Amino acid sequence: MTSSTSRQFRPLPVPSVKVGGYWGHWQDAVCDHTARILLDRCVEARMLEQIDPDVPSPGIVIPILNWLGTTQMFWDSDLGKSIETIAYSLYRKPNAALEARADAIIDMYEKLQAPDGYLNSFFQRIKPEWQWTNLRDFHELYCAGHMIEGAVAYYQATGKRKFLDVMCRMADHCVKKFGRGPGQVRGYCGHEEIELALVKLARVTGRQDYMDLAKFFVDERGQTPNFFVEEARAHGRDPKGVQKSTLEYNQSHLPVREQAKVVGHAVRAMYLYAAMADLATEYNDDSLTAALETLWADLTRKQMYITGGIGPAAANEGFTDHYDLPNDSAYAETCASVGLVFWASRMLGRGPDRLYADILEQALYNGAITGLSLDGKTFFYDNPLESSGKHHRWTWHPCPCCPPNIARLVASLGSYIYQVADDEIAVHLFAESEARVELANGARFTLRQETDYPWSGDISIAIDPEVPARFAVSLRVPAWAREARLMVNGQPVDPGAVGAEGYIRIEREWTKGDSLAMTLPLEPRLLRAHPAVRQDAGRVAIMRGPLVYCLEGADNGAGLNSVLLRHGLGAAQTATIPDLRGAIAIDLPVLRESGESWGEALYAEKAPETEPGQARLVPYHLWDNRAPGEMLVWLRQAAE
Amino acid sequence: MTSSTSRQFRPLPVPSVKVGGYWGHWQDAVCDHTARILLDRCVEARMLEQIDPDVPSPGIVIPILNWLGTTQMFWDSDLGKSIETIAYSLYRKPNAALEARADAIIDMYEKLQAPDGYLNSFFQRIKPEWQWTNLRDFHELYCAGHMIEGAVAYYQATGKRKFLDVMCRMADHCVKKFGRGPGQVRGYCGHEEIELALVKLARVTGRQDYMDLAKFFVDERGQTPNFFVEEARAHGRDPKGVQKSTLEYNQSHLPVREQAKVVGHAVRAMYLYAAMADLATEYNDDSLTAALETLWADLTRKQMYITGGIGPAAANEGFTDHYDLPNDSAYAETCASVGLVFWASRMLGRGPDRLYADILEQALYNGAITGLSLDGKTFFYDNPLESSGKHHRWTWHPCPCCPPNIARLVASLGSYIYQVADDEIAVHLFAESEARVELANGARFTLRQETDYPWSGDISIAIDPEVPARFAVSLRVPAWAREARLMVNGQPVDPGAVGAEGYIRIEREWTKGDSLAMTLPLEPRLLRAHPAVRQDAGRVAIMRGPLVYCLEGADNGAGLNSVLLRHGLGAAQTATIPDLRGAIAIDLPVLRESGESWGEALYAEKAPETEPGQARLVPYHLWDNRAPGEMLVWLRQAAE
Repeated sequence: MTSSTSRQFRPLPVPSVKVGGYWGHWQDAVCDHTARILLDRCVEARMLEQIDPDVPSPGIVIPILNWLGTTQMFWDSDLGKSIETIAYSLYRKPNAALEARADAIIDMYEKLQAPDGYLNSFFQRIKPEWQWTNLRDFHELYCAGHMIEGAVAYYQATGKRKFLDVMCRMADHCVKKFGRGPGQVRGYCGHEEIELALVKLARVTGRQDYMDLAKFFVDERGQTPNFFVEEARAHGRDPKGVQKSTLEYNQSHLPVREQAKVVGHAVRAMYLYAAMADLATEYNDDSLTAALETLWADLTRKQMYITGGIGPAAANEGFTDHYDLPNDSAYAETCASVGLVFWASRMLGRGPDRLYADILEQALYNGAITGLSLDGKTFFYDNPLESSGKHHRWTWHPCPCCPPNIARLVASLGSYIYQVADDEIAVHLFAESEARVELANGARFTLRQETDYPWSGDISIAIDPEVPARFAVSLRVPAWAREARLMVNGQPVDPGAVGAEGYIRIEREWTKGDSLAMTLPLEPRLLRAHPAVRQDAGRVAIMRGPLVYCLEGADNGAGLNSVLLRHGLGAAQTATIPDLRGAIAIDLPVLRESGESWGEALYAEKAPETEPGQARLVPYHLWDNRAPGEMLVWLRQAAE
Repeated sequence: MTSSTSRQFRPLPVPSVKVGGYWGHWQDAVCDHTARILLDRCVEARMLEQIDPDVPSPGIVIPILNWLGTTQMFWDSDLGKSIETIAYSLYRKPNAALEARADAIIDMYEKLQAPDGYLNSFFQRIKPEWQWTNLRDFHELYCAGHMIEGAVAYYQATGKRKFLDVMCRMADHCVKKFGRGPGQVRGYCGHEEIELALVKLARVTGRQDYMDLAKFFVDERGQTPNFFVEEARAHGRDPKGVQKSTLEYNQSHLPVREQAKVVGHAVRAMYLYAAMADLATEYNDDSLTAALETLWADLTRKQMYITGGIGPAAANEGFTDHYDLPNDSAYAETCASVGLVFWASRMLGRGPDRLYADILEQALYNGAITGLSLDGKTFFYDNPLESSGKHHRWTWHPCPCCPPNIARLVASLGSYIYQVADDEIAVHLFAESEARVELANGARFTLRQETDYPWSGDISIAIDPEVPARFAVSLRVPAWAREARLMVNGQPVDPGAVGAEGYIRIEREWTKGDSLAMTLPLEPRLLRAHPAVRQDAGRVAIMRGPLVYCLEGADNGAGLNSVLLRHGLGAAQTATIPDLRGAIAIDLPVLRESGESWGEALYAEKAPETEPGQARLVPYHLWDNRAPGEMLVWLRQAAE
């Protein structure tokens, strides 16, 4: 229970952490390819024509679906996330051409902004008469949120204030428009996002009114009478016409502190909970934290794929019933797992706890990064756990929310590895990196992790304070690492030192040359799902460290459901796959059912014959980076 | 191989066969409830307003979807099928009120018919300017087909010629309009149906030009240049805009004799193949039969659910890839299995062969009748083989094609039990019934089957000729009945007498009092699917006789995927279920995985604990007739 702590952990800023190794390669892919590709695709989609006041408006490019509008309404969010990605990428690799393109877009936005601060290219250039008429469906505040996040990142990365100032003016506009005062609107956005963006903006500007507006949006959500129902009536729309016919879809069915089941559109839900967690930290709000703990248990114990994918259904891009986790039709949107990383990271704001950090890692390595190809050029939107061979990475999508979302997460990955409180640094992720840290208690030091994680379980940490300093280092011991070993300056630490929250906390005076060495056991593990998950019944999944593994056609040919694992993983061997940037594969003896010996009958009173063979498993997040083919996570086992 | 026979088997007319027992109960449900419900629902949907020239047109009731039109376009087909159902039901139970309602509808159609014979209420009353502008999507000939079938049935049932004459005038109109002559249209319908209807009409009227028009439609289909592509161009539409973007969707991608894979919309495909089989019989056309044999093998060896359900995908209401048979999302439309019964029955036109009759039975008992509730009042449209408890029978559907389709099949079931050639009667189905037969060779006799099939495997057949007569009786021995026993007048028949086509053929002079007795073994059988069917991998299904069984929540509670069959069915016991009209249940010892002992974790490195228990299986086609809940056909087996 973290409910009653008043400690506050916040991420290290992106520029304070230099990332190498495994994540460094991903960041290089984003810097070298994805960041530019995002802008190119936005241009091809005609987004710049919409935002540039100096060229004719393109009008409606993507058709309007009755009350629900058009995805063109959230083009500003795509540009906001793209600028955010570019900003983070500039830390790692300065790129004058890319920066100039971002500057030009920012100039357009500055020129477009209304005198009262309002800024939204769709509702200024295409449908001005619809401004603020449909908070539920029209994504106006959502777009502002992503532009704010982009503005904050761009300011931090380049020191240029223009975009930040533009978005502060929009935020000021919102502070005036929304609230409980006379003439103000007691509403909130149908797609959460503005809330967590306002927290970021408040933190970088020090403006409490932005933080309070975020809190207002969260506190108002789901109050009675329901704002969206009232808004629909006020504009002569059927209040039942809400998308997917439910208030659950956008989590406005109950006040947030009374919500106990994770429902509706998955990305919306994650962004809401992330903001709630931020506010719980900022306001030390135990009532928010209590609700979040309930929702966290609901999600991670009843509604999450083993990959950290969430939201099984395409119909509502979101949640269905407890334990309903179909594999081949899994929606499990990349954005939703990115959102889960956001939420998990913010749950650590009240103190280190592997209940959150383990899931952060699981969702990051299996749910989120899966959305990006190794070369940073192609993307997954939905992430099934089984494919008959027809699911492939694409270059763009009609709703291009995922590519910039995973890209900005990768480019800002440094801020997820560490968090700091006044006198403590928490190491949540194992990743080759160097952090420059200054704690509130005055301690200044460099912390350097050397590791080939997740391929190797050996992690060396060097702590170099400028002058000897007292502070605590908390190091996560993942729940799956039951025989982890830790040494401080060469001396073994008692495994019993792992606290209830799954961290080893070492508080001491640190001096130059101090070191920690951790070894995590990476033997493959055989996992089963809760018996209530009907889709996984009788099947097993293999994990190694934080990584979920899968069979892929590229290694194993077709007919992956004919592969039967032998019991036990004792004969498992590992191998390095150069084609997958040095990833570790797992090779196993298996049985395979033979279609040839079965004959022509579709159904028969006999069991298929089996023959012995070998199978290779590869990390799930790297699938479809080689030849196209089948893929399978949940495997059958031989009866033997 | 039946390709080279010149024998022609045709069904006995519906009035020649009186049905009792199992099917008699279904027919009673249709007579007592379904027939009237169909008309009531058509009235509620405002169909009569559309066809009655004396009342104002209702206009567009169901919205138009661009080129594809609206389902309102095929309201005439719903009325046609409803009248057909009523007609057949009148054989069993005269019903003056229902007959009067049908007469009134027929009067409206007569009044509506154009002087040139054209008849289609939508294209006369709602969109006259669209007449004959879009054969591909607008269902004009399809509607004519169903009205022809209705007219034939109504004429046969009541002796009233009015509807038949009306539809002959429409057929005459089509004979003029379509063909290869100057000024004629070389086209065909995007939804096959008119072809098999014209065969029926030709048979009842003796009009060869109707038969030849059916042959023309079949022969033209898929010829180059493609008619639908040309038609779209001629009307300024995008030829790629065809529904689901493929010519495969309506089987016009290739000339029918070159088609080797069953593709596209399932009902369309079945109606086409049914007509092809009729024409193969009527014209002794071996080239059609050869194509049909290839398509039959493709469907039944690679694309058919064990229930005889076909067309797994909702997206195209049809076929996907070989061996792709998802259970919980199975579309398997009731109409498609009804269509498979039509096709299978017509494949028997060239001689008895259990290759077809076994599938006829399988689709009838598991794919088709499942669409009707025991009381004849509610319906299934799609027929999954697994349900988490949310799939239920409904009272009506936006596309109400299935209720009248299964109803007319049930009401005309007598014509599927027997077929006759000049000197032979084939007994394809085991069903309590009495047939009055007159063969072309002059033999006149009554054949009476007494049986409680499918609950019992004992079948007694009494053959009573008026005077001793020589003819053959061919009796199907299902492929699953490996130890069937047959006696003629109390004398055992050598099991080796079963011919290559799976029928025992007894040719002799029959005299009054002659009898056959057959016993089919009904021990439950454990079936597995071809290893290439990934969705059934490692699972088993249980059949008893022709019936597929399932677990249902009503008997077994929730969590059916936690149920593990013990190996072997030796301990199986049967019981009668009064709630399901005396159906036979199968009770089995099982293991059940325990969710309680598993704990809270969603994924863990352990196997679930199991505890012994009992499970009850019921016939799949009777599911969801009691309390709502889960359902499962493909079951897990314990590893023991």
